[in-house]
Amino acid sequence: MVKTLEQTAREPLYSQVANKIGQLIEGGVLRAGDRIPSVRRASRQHKVSITTAVQAYLALENRGLIEARPKSGFFVRVQRHYDLGEPKTSRPSSGAVPTESPTLIAKLLDATMRPDIIQLGAGLPNARLLPVQKLNRMLAAAARRAGTASIEYDMPPGCLALRRALARRALDWGVKILPEEIITTCGCTEAIVLCLRSVTRSGDTVAIESPTYFGLIQIIEQLGLRPLEIPTHPRTGMDLDSLERALPVRRVTACLVVPNFNNPLGSLMPVANKARLVALLAKKEIPLIEDDLYGDVYFDNGDRPHVAKAYDKRGLVMLCGSFSKSLAPGYRVGWMMPGRYFEAARNLKCATIGATPTLPQLALADYVVNGGYDHHLRGLRRALKRQVNDISRAVAESFPERIKMTRPAGGLVLWVELPPHVDALRLHSKALTEKISIAPGPMFSPRQDYRNFIRLSCGEPWSPQLERAIGVLAYLVKQMC
Amino acid sequence: MVKTLEQTAREPLYSQVANKIGQLIEGGVLRAGDRIPSVRRASRQHKVSITTAVQAYLALENRGLIEARPKSGFFVRVQRHYDLGEPKTSRPSSGAVPTESPTLIAKLLDATMRPDIIQLGAGLPNARLLPVQKLNRMLAAAARRAGTASIEYDMPPGCLALRRALARRALDWGVKILPEEIITTCGCTEAIVLCLRSVTRSGDTVAIESPTYFGLIQIIEQLGLRPLEIPTHPRTGMDLDSLERALPVRRVTACLVVPNFNNPLGSLMPVANKARLVALLAKKEIPLIEDDLYGDVYFDNGDRPHVAKAYDKRGLVMLCGSFSKSLAPGYRVGWMMPGRYFEAARNLKCATIGATPTLPQLALADYVVNGGYDHHLRGLRRALKRQVNDISRAVAESFPERIKMTRPAGGLVLWVELPPHVDALRLHSKALTEKISIAPGPMFSPRQDYRNFIRLSCGEPWSPQLERAIGVLAYLVKQMC
Repeated sequence: MVKTLEQTAREPLYSQVANKIGQLIEGGVLRAGDRIPSVRRASRQHKVSITTAVQAYLALENRGLIEARPKSGFFVRVQRHYDLGEPKTSRPSSGAVPTESPTLIAKLLDATMRPDIIQLGAGLPNARLLPVQKLNRMLAAAARRAGTASIEYDMPPGCLALRRALARRALDWGVKILPEEIITTCGCTEAIVLCLRSVTRSGDTVAIESPTYFGLIQIIEQLGLRPLEIPTHPRTGMDLDSLERALPVRRVTACLVVPNFNNPLGSLMPVANKARLVALLAKKEIPLIEDDLYGDVYFDNGDRPHVAKAYDKRGLVMLCGSFSKSLAPGYRVGWMMPGRYFEAARNLKCATIGATPTLPQLALADYVVNGGYDHHLRGLRRALKRQVNDISRAVAESFPERIKMTRPAGGLVLWVELPPHVDALRLHSKALTEKISIAPGPMFSPRQDYRNFIRLSCGEPWSPQLERAIGVLAYLVKQMC
Repeated sequence: MVKTLEQTAREPLYSQVANKIGQLIEGGVLRAGDRIPSVRRASRQHKVSITTAVQAYLALENRGLIEARPKSGFFVRVQRHYDLGEPKTSRPSSGAVPTESPTLIAKLLDATMRPDIIQLGAGLPNARLLPVQKLNRMLAAAARRAGTASIEYDMPPGCLALRRALARRALDWGVKILPEEIITTCGCTEAIVLCLRSVTRSGDTVAIESPTYFGLIQIIEQLGLRPLEIPTHPRTGMDLDSLERALPVRRVTACLVVPNFNNPLGSLMPVANKARLVALLAKKEIPLIEDDLYGDVYFDNGDRPHVAKAYDKRGLVMLCGSFSKSLAPGYRVGWMMPGRYFEAARNLKCATIGATPTLPQLALADYVVNGGYDHHLRGLRRALKRQVNDISRAVAESFPERIKMTRPAGGLVLWVELPPHVDALRLHSKALTEKISIAPGPMFSPRQDYRNFIRLSCGEPWSPQLERAIGVLAYLVKQMC
């Protein structure tokens, strides 16, 4: 009791106010759909400043308890049914199965081009969530300012202004790095390809999470590498005991992991696990390629999650990322911090693609430094969290109760386990006929496991069409049960 | 005699006027450095319109006989000493030599970033020759027009407007192709990597010209492929008899050729040879990867040279190109026309880099259709031809007489054969100490042949510094003889 009081005393004022209102909602005093008092009224009721009241409401919004409706004020959100279980730690199968991935991926990508299709497939944020106008203005300004430099090659390591901006941001990820240790790339995919090629040769084995992003599997297969799937927990990521047991058995040449919000799981590897992962691999001198594409899109109100590279003392971690999920997919700007493999990665980049486009780098550097990137990220995180909640709720309300679903800590996708006999590939085909794009589970494993799983992208804001699409999906699943 | 008269009669009027003035120059009536009559006066003297007189002067300029000096009128150019011989058809050696290429390439690229260095190394046109302002304006306009599409992924095959523009231009190259058969890429290098990877596997043999662009050699080596060097003539390109003899002996999986202005030779494969090359390979079902990076930069006044793909009936030719030598290196936009390997190349692109940056494609599509690309190309070709002539003249006047030098038909580089005992790698080091960047011959062969050759880039317009740099190079060469 005393402890609780102490805790309350130490909490910021806005948080105390938010808690009080939260209790009213959770206790049923305020109910789903109710309008809650205006900010002005709340400030009077709780005897706090307007600013504090606003902060309290933002905190409630972040917790998914209330929502703002344009020009109408704040309302209590419909409660999500979170009694659904989560999927268990994966148990990847063994034995090779011929892959249908290229066709499936092509279908998924083709669907993104068609405005008549409901986008629950490709894991992209809707462009309306991104600062299009501002970025394009900054690009135009960069073009004017840069003069001839704007059309000249910007040879690897690439745009210095951008590398400086990244070095500053990396401090928030727990990484102290110099601009000279960073190489800009054409998106995160190029970075990962270059890192893998810098440390592996055809035939080598690469340990990955299971399930993991089909794009990573495709890269591994097309480089002639052998993926080794490690069981992965939907909330804490790669199972390190399993990894530790696998290392002496299989000769692993590199490890490719997405510690922050693995796609499709949305898992967040705890700090202790990140440190252990790095130490485990360092003992055997195995390079870790860390894909941090989603690191900026975390849902809680704390600090940005650290990367595994924060615990790297030996230069063995090659960190990759990009602005494709948070700012401008079509600008194609990413980066790598390849540690001790810097020279190899840079030479490879020179040989295989050369310079990264000049102007998009300049524009993004300007935006990150002067454009209000953190403000934008706050809004984007709120929006994506809400969208993930919306889809979760709709699925929980309409799908058969036996399903399981992840509770992602960040990112923009949900991983749904359907009843054992539902074939996700068939569901995918049927849904596409109904103009709904989803990603079937077998795409996320080299052996086409996860035949009764689907990944739902939450990149689109709620709309009646989306709600109907979930309804149709639920109907199709029930038919197949 | 009659024949000559007939010829004269059939020639356009401006050409007749140009010939008359040309005879005055060649006969020594007008001498190097003399001011020639103004256009107005010439129109009176020769009884032709002002327009015709202007055309005549442009023709003389194109032939390298006169030059315009800003605000001063036209002057007779200093005559070039073309008594220098050309290098012979190459005879590539056999037996492997460890390669120093990565270091040399890095040095070459680093030099391009340093404004204090005289750029005779990297084969790039000076940005002042390119329509920077107009392109950047078009990029800004594209950003405004495209709205959210400007930051979204433009998935392979890429920007339709650009593919349409390319399909129209390809008619001038002798190729009838649909936009659906074209894939846009991040520059020509990506296109070549994707084409090679689509048709080869590690360990396969790829036939190439000798010498050839170090970037191509690097790609081949880094894909684990084996380069097979085919003797190449400095004016007519790859020796097809040699290729034909090599094919039954070595199992060649693909052939990578630059028929239009091979870099470093500037050779132009005659039409009959292009047809024969395609037929020769088709007989054995060997794909031809054709690099047409320099095809638009031809020096004579005739039509744009055809590509080998013009003679491809079986879809075996994979044509690659980009705007990096003619418009905007830093935009990183190229393309491939991979024939029957379209699907493989597209899937590979999706897996290894994904979309090409959106806005640079839109801007270039707009420029090519509405920006006056052909007008720009005419100016660029004239400028590069003049620059090649300037460097040729300076080298011929100052280097030892025993040297040999190519007479390129297009592109922007010269290939110089030094006396047998001059070590190009040593010359390269010494020159770099004097802040002059050149490309030493061994870079252009996987076995580091051409130890007494250098490539001089003619991308920079004439300047006193350039003239002095050639003087220093000549001095260094003489010291080493």
